[in-house]
Amino acid sequence: MNRILTERFAEIRSHSEVICSDLKTEDYVVQPIVDVSPPKWHLAHTSWFFETFLLIPLLADYRPFHPQFSYLFNSYYEAVGSRTLRSDRGNLSRPTVKEVYAYREHVDRAMLVLLAQPGLSGETLALIELGLNHEQQHQELLITDIKYILGHNPLFPPIEIPLQQRQVSYADWVAVAAGIYSIGATADSGFCFDNEQGRHAVSLGAFNIAGGLVTNEEYLAFIRDGGYHRCELWHSDGWAWLQQNAVKAPMYWHERDGDWLVYTFAGLAPVALNEPVAHVNFYEASAYAAWAGARLPTEVEWEVASGRFDWGARWEWTNSAYLPYPGYQKAEGAVGEYNGKFMVNQMVLRGASEATPAGHSRATYRNFFQPELRWQYTGIRLAR
Amino acid sequence: MNRILTERFAEIRSHSEVICSDLKTEDYVVQPIVDVSPPKWHLAHTSWFFETFLLIPLLADYRPFHPQFSYLFNSYYEAVGSRTLRSDRGNLSRPTVKEVYAYREHVDRAMLVLLAQPGLSGETLALIELGLNHEQQHQELLITDIKYILGHNPLFPPIEIPLQQRQVSYADWVAVAAGIYSIGATADSGFCFDNEQGRHAVSLGAFNIAGGLVTNEEYLAFIRDGGYHRCELWHSDGWAWLQQNAVKAPMYWHERDGDWLVYTFAGLAPVALNEPVAHVNFYEASAYAAWAGARLPTEVEWEVASGRFDWGARWEWTNSAYLPYPGYQKAEGAVGEYNGKFMVNQMVLRGASEATPAGHSRATYRNFFQPELRWQYTGIRLAR
Amino acid sequence: MNRILTERFAEIRSHSEVICSDLKTEDYVVQPIVDVSPPKWHLAHTSWFFETFLLIPLLADYRPFHPQFSYLFNSYYEAVGSRTLRSDRGNLSRPTVKEVYAYREHVDRAMLVLLAQPGLSGETLALIELGLNHEQQHQELLITDIKYILGHNPLFPPIEIPLQQRQVSYADWVAVAAGIYSIGATADSGFCFDNEQGRHAVSLGAFNIAGGLVTNEEYLAFIRDGGYHRCELWHSDGWAWLQQNAVKAPMYWHERDGDWLVYTFAGLAPVALNEPVAHVNFYEASAYAAWAGARLPTEVEWEVASGRFDWGARWEWTNSAYLPYPGYQKAEGAVGEYNGKFMVNQMVLRGASEATPAGHSRATYRNFFQPELRWQYTGIRLAR
Amino acid sequence: MNRILTERFAEIRSHSEVICSDLKTEDYVVQPIVDVSPPKWHLAHTSWFFETFLLIPLLADYRPFHPQFSYLFNSYYEAVGSRTLRSDRGNLSRPTVKEVYAYREHVDRAMLVLLAQPGLSGETLALIELGLNHEQQHQELLITDIKYILGHNPLFPPIEIPLQQRQVSYADWVAVAAGIYSIGATADSGFCFDNEQGRHAVSLGAFNIAGGLVTNEEYLAFIRDGGYHRCELWHSDGWAWLQQNAVKAPMYWHERDGDWLVYTFAGLAPVALNEPVAHVNFYEASAYAAWAGARLPTEVEWEVASGRFDWGARWEWTNSAYLPYPGYQKAEGAVGEYNGKFMVNQMVLRGASEATPAGHSRATYRNFFQPELRWQYTGIRLAR
Repeated sequence: MNRILTERFAEIRSHSEVICSDLKTEDYVVQPIVDVSPPKWHLAHTSWFFETFLLIPLLADYRPFHPQFSYLFNSYYEAVGSRTLRSDRGNLSRPTVKEVYAYREHVDRAMLVLLAQPGLSGETLALIELGLNHEQQHQELLITDIKYILGHNPLFPPIEIPLQQRQVSYADWVAVAAGIYSIGATADSGFCFDNEQGRHAVSLGAFNIAGGLVTNEEYLAFIRDGGYHRCELWHSDGWAWLQQNAVKAPMYWHERDGDWLVYTFAGLAPVALNEPVAHVNFYEASAYAAWAGARLPTEVEWEVASGRFDWGARWEWTNSAYLPYPGYQKAEGAVGEYNGKFMVNQMVLRGASEATPAGHSRATYRNFFQPELRWQYTGIRLAR
Repeated sequence: MNRILTERFAEIRSHSEVICSDLKTEDYVVQPIVDVSPPKWHLAHTSWFFETFLLIPLLADYRPFHPQFSYLFNSYYEAVGSRTLRSDRGNLSRPTVKEVYAYREHVDRAMLVLLAQPGLSGETLALIELGLNHEQQHQELLITDIKYILGHNPLFPPIEIPLQQRQVSYADWVAVAAGIYSIGATADSGFCFDNEQGRHAVSLGAFNIAGGLVTNEEYLAFIRDGGYHRCELWHSDGWAWLQQNAVKAPMYWHERDGDWLVYTFAGLAPVALNEPVAHVNFYEASAYAAWAGARLPTEVEWEVASGRFDWGARWEWTNSAYLPYPGYQKAEGAVGEYNGKFMVNQMVLRGASEATPAGHSRATYRNFFQPELRWQYTGIRLAR
Repeated sequence: MNRILTERFAEIRSHSEVICSDLKTEDYVVQPIVDVSPPKWHLAHTSWFFETFLLIPLLADYRPFHPQFSYLFNSYYEAVGSRTLRSDRGNLSRPTVKEVYAYREHVDRAMLVLLAQPGLSGETLALIELGLNHEQQHQELLITDIKYILGHNPLFPPIEIPLQQRQVSYADWVAVAAGIYSIGATADSGFCFDNEQGRHAVSLGAFNIAGGLVTNEEYLAFIRDGGYHRCELWHSDGWAWLQQNAVKAPMYWHERDGDWLVYTFAGLAPVALNEPVAHVNFYEASAYAAWAGARLPTEVEWEVASGRFDWGARWEWTNSAYLPYPGYQKAEGAVGEYNGKFMVNQMVLRGASEATPAGHSRATYRNFFQPELRWQYTGIRLAR
Repeated sequence: MNRILTERFAEIRSHSEVICSDLKTEDYVVQPIVDVSPPKWHLAHTSWFFETFLLIPLLADYRPFHPQFSYLFNSYYEAVGSRTLRSDRGNLSRPTVKEVYAYREHVDRAMLVLLAQPGLSGETLALIELGLNHEQQHQELLITDIKYILGHNPLFPPIEIPLQQRQVSYADWVAVAAGIYSIGATADSGFCFDNEQGRHAVSLGAFNIAGGLVTNEEYLAFIRDGGYHRCELWHSDGWAWLQQNAVKAPMYWHERDGDWLVYTFAGLAPVALNEPVAHVNFYEASAYAAWAGARLPTEVEWEVASGRFDWGARWEWTNSAYLPYPGYQKAEGAVGEYNGKFMVNQMVLRGASEATPAGHSRATYRNFFQPELRWQYTGIRLAR
């Protein structure tokens, strides 16, 4: 079993570096907004996870790479000790990119020693699995953060980034009958985060859910119909956000002489009409749905119907707040900070996106972001 | 039927003025924080509702009291026209309190004429009922805003305010069996807001809910056990709120020489140990629950169990975000702005409080506030 | 001597109340911006000065009016003890206006007892004189703060306020020859603040200074010539201020259908073309001067030439920063906080304004404000 | 003449790169506070000056290196066109450091062609001289910005930076007699900025000025005597700054177990007691002077006495605001934005510092910064 896990470890750790392979050194360093972390921070932080939760407690004679990295690359684990302010990550020119890669190598080598040890406990194996899924989450963020860094640079530089190809179909509405359904992960469904666990019954009325995602062409019709100027379509907080930020279109869209261009990893390009819209926030998704005479699905509806449409190209906003499932229990200790403490002021997204690494999505997955955020590959599926 | 409605109209309108009867002129004017409106604003705004939605459209020959009051006393109805910034209400010394009372009298007289007309349509009667319930909501806010204004004045002035006496019992835990239940208002349940409508089935696992509210004595034990210093008990956003504001106790509590005093309408007084704790926000309620090895109930659990305990002394935080019930539809036009546009970033409170006027509470009532707010009579009921 | 001082005391104290005689109770309470204090605060604070620096230390058996007023009505005297935040003054509905007037009466009565005592020391008499000049400074602020409160109310209420009539001439340029001059107050020039003292020699080149103030008509020409859109006329900080606040005209000006109206104590009225412009800040004054091919005078130039033109209608911005004169010494103790600690980040104004009470102006007077402020009766005199 | 200028050009341009020779690529990119620009920005901006003001207008066939660099590397010249927000400089990973060096080389090559042309006008030569002095100003900023970037990194990395050795003596007080003196640059004093021009007479009373700068040892005595806790020593704005930022010592000082360490380019080291204190702002300098029973000199006093003491190790705060000399005239066009528009809200510093390149200091030089800034090598000389 360890051999398979070792291969998986090597493959996933390597994929983070593949994502960054076309970056310039300078691209690893900057943090244009607080939500976007410098790529070198992601590379170090994911290594810090393995060092802190596995190598230091479990590998005899392990020597931490650097005494201050625990402080520098902790993200939000208050229990582990003080940490640099999240807003300061982009102010740190040191450690250099080269040192961060050396840190990764140091951690990987030690992890391979640990993985080669016979009789690793189930708890240890679960922690390694958590670390790998954590790394995959940061691979997604690496892609979206690199996009933000380059897509907000006035030179709009092109770059090679490995995106996942996902099936995008434009099928009809799917009708789901009223009834009692079950959602959530079961004990034997393989790895999942604690926030998915606790399969439980839900009662649903009949509803319809769109077989496809809203396209750029459809979203353009909303813009051209004055969608960003009609307050009755918006939440009160959404309307305030829109006006404070003078928003007129999804993130990365630029109007030039009446045409809409969009930043892609190939540089600025015309908006592709038949692609699903991306980089809209919850407020925009909700306003679009109101304009279209529909609504966003709840996460329960989404999960129940998810076997009947293609998904995986865009994270899809639901009209569900991120809250614990019945019987949810936080894990003990620092790992327990992973999910529970974020269960307020965020909305649930379901699905996955073209930035999600292969093998890191499932129908029970619960992603979550604040309703005003747009830098993920977020899209819109309608319900009614 | 009109006679009963007329009496009800007179009684409710009069009660707003009873609440203010012991105020000094100066107390009507100030707005110490953006959430707290000047009492004279409440008195005028509730009149504006009747003038705008009933008198101007329906009463022939009605002359608005003042051409600019529509602009001055609109609260959030974007559809009705521009309005003063909410944060500016406390900067307006004019119109004077006397003029506001004249405005009320002018509106009341005209409303009595309208109410005396035969054959008022069902829609008109529903709007009047909405206006009266709207006024009762502002009666609650009048009390809590007056408390904020005087309770944050260094002189801690006492004042006469009519509070409701509610039964407060400290019964045992109530056990509720798993099953399919129904919540929400039905067509024939009398007046309710649109956000309560749409009775629907919910599936619940078995749970226990406390028969009584958390007392000041219990909350003091949480404080003394370091509750405000243990990050593992708090939501991430709650911990940030606590640190930014250096919070150490509920609103209105003051430590003097090791004892806790609290502002009441009778002035500063020792904290009454056996009373239910008040003026805690959602973050504090959640942290207390975590400390007590319990959790907050969901609004579904609360409503299902509400027949089995006393409630009405404190608004009770639930762990449910404020979201639409299945099939929720916004009303058309300006009245449609009443509820729907706030359905994001707020948490649901259930019950009522000692500031809630008699006849303005029911088990299906859904109140909602941002999780950081504390100036309402908010309390804690545990579940597990 | 005491009899004259007693009459002077009574007259000046009374004048503060004359200024407020047409206010409504509500007008005394609000603080729309941090720089504008509630009128009742001014009335109390000037009394606090006499209570704190004269009655408590010098009058046997004096009983302070209220134990907390020392805390409530201290302005910026850090040495005297903690004080309410300046930004909180408008949040205090209590003490009421009536109580503040009772406070004034209490202090006045005690001061009359003190003034009747024989053999008051020179130091005591100087403190009383300082208190009276302090009250006169606040009389000016009372007028400008009332103007701000009512001039920013959407109802633009008219009010009776006693303004001083000052000679306004439009004479030619005054030529001053190069030479060594003296400025500042001498020991025998009567009362002056410490910041005026230390008459000293200054060396000046030849210059011309305008005999009259810039008029509204001239300022309108600047506006119509795009003065608010030409960055080369502005200081860098002025340009940033203008853009952040979308400024297009002096404070209190409103464009309606192509005409300019202005708030006066008689209500909204057309801009009077031949009156001197008022309510411009240092940035606007400087930009106007650059547009007119001139500059602002220094305070030295102004004082040297001040005998050769009419002044007193507007406080006149100079291009001098507020800094100590050679040999300046702060007084010991709390009174020493009067002036010295403000000698950075402010610009000097010379002259007086129609809000300055009679007998409170002289050529050596140094007023000072931050360069962005406009709520005083500030105007423009050119030099070259 | 051109040959000498060419050599001077090459030497100064090269020195900027010498300063950066020990930087890592990452160090060139970050901007931890808005006042600190990324080193690559300095390298590009100084090149932009030559490209914009000399090569494009004067060199036939010159091809700008990149069409967007004019936009990216403009600093504050509003007249030249739109520019990136100053606060965004640290968000730009591109152009890369390598591209910036290529830009420098491109500009330098073209400048050598221009410099080789016969008959350059006096105006052109003056612009080149201005460009070189501009580059020297940025060399100073390069050093102080690199110090900020590395000195605020938790790793406190050491680095090789060429600092100037300046004579630091601790002579006695220098007495200057009252009289009429002249200050400012004359037409034949060689290069100077426009703000130094216009030699003029000033009248001074007798004063004493310290022969040496305040040392770290002396400043430590101020700290230990509670200097940061005694409001009577501080300007009102200084006291507010100190409390908002919880300041307890000069920038770069760290207390560890009762000892004071300081960041130097060699890493963290104990504070050297006999060195002149550095990295204090105007408020700290003024408070220290008040504590020492002295004051800061005016810029006039400083210049008059400057021949009688050693200076050049620290920029020295004066108690003079940055204002125009008599007869000051802004240059026409974009170059006119160099100085005049900053003549408000800043204080004058005199002297030079160990970061000032050789040949870039003179007694008439007027540097200026906002009173709260500390990241320059600012120090304290007393007067009385």
